[in-house]
Amino acid sequence: MRSRNDVESWHRLKEKYLSSLLEERLVSYLDPGAEEILLKINSLRDVVTTSSCIGRITIVEAKFPWERREESRIVFKSHYQINEFEVALVVSRDLSPLWLKVTGPIIHMRVRSLDCASKILEIARRSGFKHSGIISIDREGPGCCTLEINSPTQMITPLKTSRGVIVRGQDLKIVVKLANEILLEGRRRLKSLVNNLEEARGFCS
Amino acid sequence: MRSRNDVESWHRLKEKYLSSLLEERLVSYLDPGAEEILLKINSLRDVVTTSSCIGRITIVEAKFPWERREESRIVFKSHYQINEFEVALVVSRDLSPLWLKVTGPIIHMRVRSLDCASKILEIARRSGFKHSGIISIDREGPGCCTLEINSPTQMITPLKTSRGVIVRGQDLKIVVKLANEILLEGRRRLKSLVNNLEEARGFCS
Repeated sequence: MRSRNDVESWHRLKEKYLSSLLEERLVSYLDPGAEEILLKINSLRDVVTTSSCIGRITIVEAKFPWERREESRIVFKSHYQINEFEVALVVSRDLSPLWLKVTGPIIHMRVRSLDCASKILEIARRSGFKHSGIISIDREGPGCCTLEINSPTQMITPLKTSRGVIVRGQDLKIVVKLANEILLEGRRRLKSLVNNLEEARGFCS
Repeated sequence: MRSRNDVESWHRLKEKYLSSLLEERLVSYLDPGAEEILLKINSLRDVVTTSSCIGRITIVEAKFPWERREESRIVFKSHYQINEFEVALVVSRDLSPLWLKVTGPIIHMRVRSLDCASKILEIARRSGFKHSGIISIDREGPGCCTLEINSPTQMITPLKTSRGVIVRGQDLKIVVKLANEILLEGRRRLKSLVNNLEEARGFCS
């Protein structure tokens, strides 16, 4: 019997994820600009990306900003810079509580060996993704583990409660400006990460 | 030659961290209420906590809320609930930009085996610490790796920029109320985590 981590099973797993990536691209489910980044990461032989977000600005209707899908609703989403009028429009609707969230790029990847995972973690931290870690050790299937790459470039701020609007007018303009700057900083770090991942080639291919 | 992961070296490492824990307690560096929690976690034979925070509310003077120590300054810190007067006082000082941050409990632990780390990760996620992961694989010294336990119970909101105050009056009162609720939710999850860690005993001791 072959080991669960043999080359063939790993290739099958990687093929599976890469073809869903292609499907997502075809139906435009992929974040704008994500394809090039994901293809570069997946060019490491012992790595396959399983889900990703290049960073985004959302407005969430939820009691708390971390609520799961069942208890919260994304009422606005943008992967690009936003302006205060878009936000004011959402805030004016009959929705509450509302939170403005800027999240940095998040990439999940399945990795074949601990050596490769460890090297990617080191590179990720150095590239400004200090909230990265191995989030699960895989006991079944090929590969050693699943990595989450995450950065602290975020903002989580209340816009409105059931008692009314918190941020408005000139203040909203400032908050939106900060949100855009934070989104851009995430992108900058993503670019630097993808470049630096070249250093992982000796460990992951 | 003994392996680097032998019982004796592990004990020495654990002793080292436990004695600094005792020192921190003696000089009151330890977060209030942390001791009981840390002792419970350290009662797992193959685990030793290396640093921890039980969750806190801070006001940070920095361009961005994630800036490192050199580029930012904590101008207010509380491990307890706060009120709007304390915050207003800080905001009234000649400081900017200011960010209000609520961070959930964060615990770093060195773990002896991947089996133990994997079990703790699973328990942590189930207890509401979904931002947890193995942040480094230790190539030197005893133990397999370092775990970070972290929760999404947080808020990161701008209070003031160089152009003036963003959140004031009644709005500040609401933001402070939210901050206190988020702090409490972190504590609730910490309690649940510590209870659930009993399940790790079979894997970590």
